[in-house]
Amino acid sequence: MSASFLEEPLALLTRTPATLDSLLRGLPEVWTDATEGPNTWSPYTVVGHLIHAEKVDWMPRLQIILEHGPARAFDPFDREAQCRESAGKSLSNLLDEFTVRRNDNLARLRALDLQPAQLQLPGTHPGLGPVTVRQLLATWTAHDLGHLVQISRTMAKRYQQEVGPWAQYLSVMN
Amino acid sequence: MSASFLEEPLALLTRTPATLDSLLRGLPEVWTDATEGPNTWSPYTVVGHLIHAEKVDWMPRLQIILEHGPARAFDPFDREAQCRESAGKSLSNLLDEFTVRRNDNLARLRALDLQPAQLQLPGTHPGLGPVTVRQLLATWTAHDLGHLVQISRTMAKRYQQEVGPWAQYLSVMN
Repeated sequence: MSASFLEEPLALLTRTPATLDSLLRGLPEVWTDATEGPNTWSPYTVVGHLIHAEKVDWMPRLQIILEHGPARAFDPFDREAQCRESAGKSLSNLLDEFTVRRNDNLARLRALDLQPAQLQLPGTHPGLGPVTVRQLLATWTAHDLGHLVQISRTMAKRYQQEVGPWAQYLSVMN
Repeated sequence: MSASFLEEPLALLTRTPATLDSLLRGLPEVWTDATEGPNTWSPYTVVGHLIHAEKVDWMPRLQIILEHGPARAFDPFDREAQCRESAGKSLSNLLDEFTVRRNDNLARLRALDLQPAQLQLPGTHPGLGPVTVRQLLATWTAHDLGHLVQISRTMAKRYQQEVGPWAQYLSVMN
């Protein structure tokens, strides 16, 4: 049961780079730089955030659990790191980097060959307290999907006025 | 201004088939058949709905405006048609069909070579009243993005329990 659980997150995590690539690469900047207002993220910002999470969040946190268990809390995650790290990079650069880092992380995850019992191993989140390997992998997956929601919603809302009376049929506008 | 407007919807509408393909093709059915509860749509259902809209909504409505103006209201859209039309088809079949129909419709749209003045032409929506060509094209685009939001959100919510305490950091779960 738990062994096959691992295939579920993997199936989605594997697809995210190509999904973002198909949606965003070469798209005009009016779309990829759109936001939902002040202090909200554009698709460009989100891709930078996903890269940062590949670098410091998911696999490093899994390694902390496997090596230290709950004794060592994860390092806190910097939600604004992409503002520095994406500087000067095109969206194409970022999509390339995300693809490489994601593929590398999934290769390392597969190489760990996690067994069902390991999915239950406990770790310590600095803000949330006790979590498990299984919850970490599920969160990695849901985090991808949540940001795909955000990217799609942000771009849809650019057309809040453009759609005219149709706005009342489009729940994404509300 | 309006002429370049047309490039915006086209850029997105062109990318939707590959985006859905990258995200959904070959994904385990636990993901693609997931719903948000009774009477809500799975990713599989949504792809069938998008196909139906390619057949009877966007380009047929544009043709009605170009040929009849506001005098003839659009035919009402059947939101449940995909329940019949998708019957017996695999998700791969549906993704193939959506790609063919979308590409065909966009080729026809490009061939119309709509001029700025034509974007302002009025039509009559059976429920919403007066609309324009420009609003129709914007709605086609936002409709794609809205359903990409729906697909991603529906799959994310499968992990509402699996993510454990992380749920409070994931706004998509709420």
